[in-house]
Amino acid sequence: MGIIVQKFGGTSVADATKVKNVAKRIVRTQEEGHQVAVVVSAMGDTTDQLTFLAHEISANPPDRELAMLLSTGEQVSIALLAMAVTELGYQAISLTGTQVGIVTGGFYSEARIQHINDSRILSELDKGKIVILAGFQGVSIDNEITTLGRGASDTTATAVAATLGADRCEIYTDVDGVYTADPRVVPNARKLSRITYDEMFEMAQLGAKVLHSRSVEIAKKFDVPLHVRSSFGEDEGTMVVKDSVMIEEVVISGVTSDKDQAKISLLGLPDTPGIAAQIFQKVADANINIDMIIQNAGQDETADISFTVAEKDLAPTLGIVESLKSNMGFRSISTDKTIAKISAIGIGMQSHVGIAARMFSALGTEGVNIQMISTSEIKISCAIDERHTERAVRAVHDEFELGNVAS
Amino acid sequence: MGIIVQKFGGTSVADATKVKNVAKRIVRTQEEGHQVAVVVSAMGDTTDQLTFLAHEISANPPDRELAMLLSTGEQVSIALLAMAVTELGYQAISLTGTQVGIVTGGFYSEARIQHINDSRILSELDKGKIVILAGFQGVSIDNEITTLGRGASDTTATAVAATLGADRCEIYTDVDGVYTADPRVVPNARKLSRITYDEMFEMAQLGAKVLHSRSVEIAKKFDVPLHVRSSFGEDEGTMVVKDSVMIEEVVISGVTSDKDQAKISLLGLPDTPGIAAQIFQKVADANINIDMIIQNAGQDETADISFTVAEKDLAPTLGIVESLKSNMGFRSISTDKTIAKISAIGIGMQSHVGIAARMFSALGTEGVNIQMISTSEIKISCAIDERHTERAVRAVHDEFELGNVAS
Repeated sequence: MGIIVQKFGGTSVADATKVKNVAKRIVRTQEEGHQVAVVVSAMGDTTDQLTFLAHEISANPPDRELAMLLSTGEQVSIALLAMAVTELGYQAISLTGTQVGIVTGGFYSEARIQHINDSRILSELDKGKIVILAGFQGVSIDNEITTLGRGASDTTATAVAATLGADRCEIYTDVDGVYTADPRVVPNARKLSRITYDEMFEMAQLGAKVLHSRSVEIAKKFDVPLHVRSSFGEDEGTMVVKDSVMIEEVVISGVTSDKDQAKISLLGLPDTPGIAAQIFQKVADANINIDMIIQNAGQDETADISFTVAEKDLAPTLGIVESLKSNMGFRSISTDKTIAKISAIGIGMQSHVGIAARMFSALGTEGVNIQMISTSEIKISCAIDERHTERAVRAVHDEFELGNVAS
Repeated sequence: MGIIVQKFGGTSVADATKVKNVAKRIVRTQEEGHQVAVVVSAMGDTTDQLTFLAHEISANPPDRELAMLLSTGEQVSIALLAMAVTELGYQAISLTGTQVGIVTGGFYSEARIQHINDSRILSELDKGKIVILAGFQGVSIDNEITTLGRGASDTTATAVAATLGADRCEIYTDVDGVYTADPRVVPNARKLSRITYDEMFEMAQLGAKVLHSRSVEIAKKFDVPLHVRSSFGEDEGTMVVKDSVMIEEVVISGVTSDKDQAKISLLGLPDTPGIAAQIFQKVADANINIDMIIQNAGQDETADISFTVAEKDLAPTLGIVESLKSNMGFRSISTDKTIAKISAIGIGMQSHVGIAARMFSALGTEGVNIQMISTSEIKISCAIDERHTERAVRAVHDEFELGNVAS
């Protein structure tokens, strides 16, 4: 009998009625002859509410206490879901990250899973129980409660599926699959029936909210088939799979945008070798990810460096560069929160030339100025003025003819 | 440097502002040269809200999942309070029942503390931290989350104080001490500056909400001085102490009432020896406390038995006696939720005769019918019609001249 892991996001368990509906779906899966492990997020906007409460008390609450606070959200939803399954006459048991042994290392927030202890989960599954696990949370080797970062219940689910050798991991969400672009921005965006791990990883990294990028990374590493589908309907969703079989000759699979970007510019840096590396090392030490970087020769033998970080990391990053300013002798720091990153993703671009040129030209025709560029084998990203985001996404989506023909 | 344990109830941490005020009080205690361990309840009516949510999903949620759910309430408040203390520039760390090792046995709810591991608390105190502990929750030897029963944060605090050999345990609450009766019912009720463990235990058992009875039991056993005082003011509260020193010649220390009582009557029981014991054993096996018992000879060689339980235990108790009905051959079962228990408590009654008679006569003069009676060395309780509760309390309070002379 195979194991299926099902993950339900916060909107899927936003109130008692929805929790009951999720319970019915889980129970049906067990009835179909599977062992079922379920990973749940916090109900609705619980995490936002708890974060707000923390900020009423402290502008900068300690990470440890924030993890202690936020982890309660998932603990509430696993308990309620276990009650709902029990109410249907089935056996269920909820387990926290501490109880399972979802062991993380490093940090209290944005912690990384190092190891998942499978013994408690397997012993409960073997008793015929539906096992309901708290997403988003882990435990350090010192028995401290940690959290994996926003949206990381997907990561919990995929890592649990990998650990258990599950047949597949089903990600239930409030959309019915992965689209070529956000349908709210691009009305004729098309649902993809399949997408590769690599493409899905880039799309998640680059602003598609449907899946957390680390979950895709884990799914790829351990070859866990992911199935993204709606918790409110019965439609087949999108399968995320290995890149061996290409169903169609697709160049670009999707276009994403991400407004949670901020640009920091350091002006008048002495043109000394290694100075940029020193700065970026300090930022990396604080667990902050630098995305795009651009360096220009400045005036008088100096250089200017601009780089982007996630908007939430702007304040701590500024703190770090301010502290380096006098020591490294650069002139000034400027910031810009009004940028967005738009990206085109597709493994097809590996075997096609001129993709970048087509994207730049589509943006140019639309009158959108490109401020920074970064590329990889399967994606091209451009930083642009945030105000042009939606227009830019539509232009690129059209350029690569990703939409439904009917629309 | 001595340790002081401070406990703050739900009303003391009901919102962010109140949490900040509690943080200031804690910090002041540390500044005065003490090591401080703090026990906190869930904010405001969180526990009620969570219970309501559970009952939206299931009329009878499993105890294990209810403990999983309710324990989040305290986890939220310890995290917020630790943030508030940190914000004041002091070091704090919050710990769950699992992290401390507040080991309980027996049941998921109404669990009893068997052992508290002091190593984590002491090591954090020795680092100069204020240690903030979740009340109401524990952990079983199987790493399962348990809860100690409503109001049991007092028990956590007292047990922690006993374990740490604390100088004293301060119980901060929304009233400024222990009164001779509920001041909302008896306007001239008097605040007691001292009360003995035994009297306080009975008062808590018999309806005074100010302290949880098990906390008093533990305080007596380990000789922990308890100080009950207001979290909103600076007044001296009530000291709960050993009975060695009697400050004044007091016969009765207080009058309490408890409306959460239900009476179950089993009619037409065969008059066989041991039949009552069998019934009460079954009820006790379900962890339900039977309070008053009265047995009358019935018709035709049968007997009638009536007994009282807490109102919340009425449904499970009925389930048990219904299941025994055909087997034991009694005629019928009746229930009555409209009863209340009023009690007079005082160690002084050990050395005075006629106390019971004075109480019965005061009730009789007031026209209140006594349905059942139970007594101990230091208390007398009467079951009466719930509608007469307030009048009865005032009559008994007056009879023993407990009020302030000024009123």
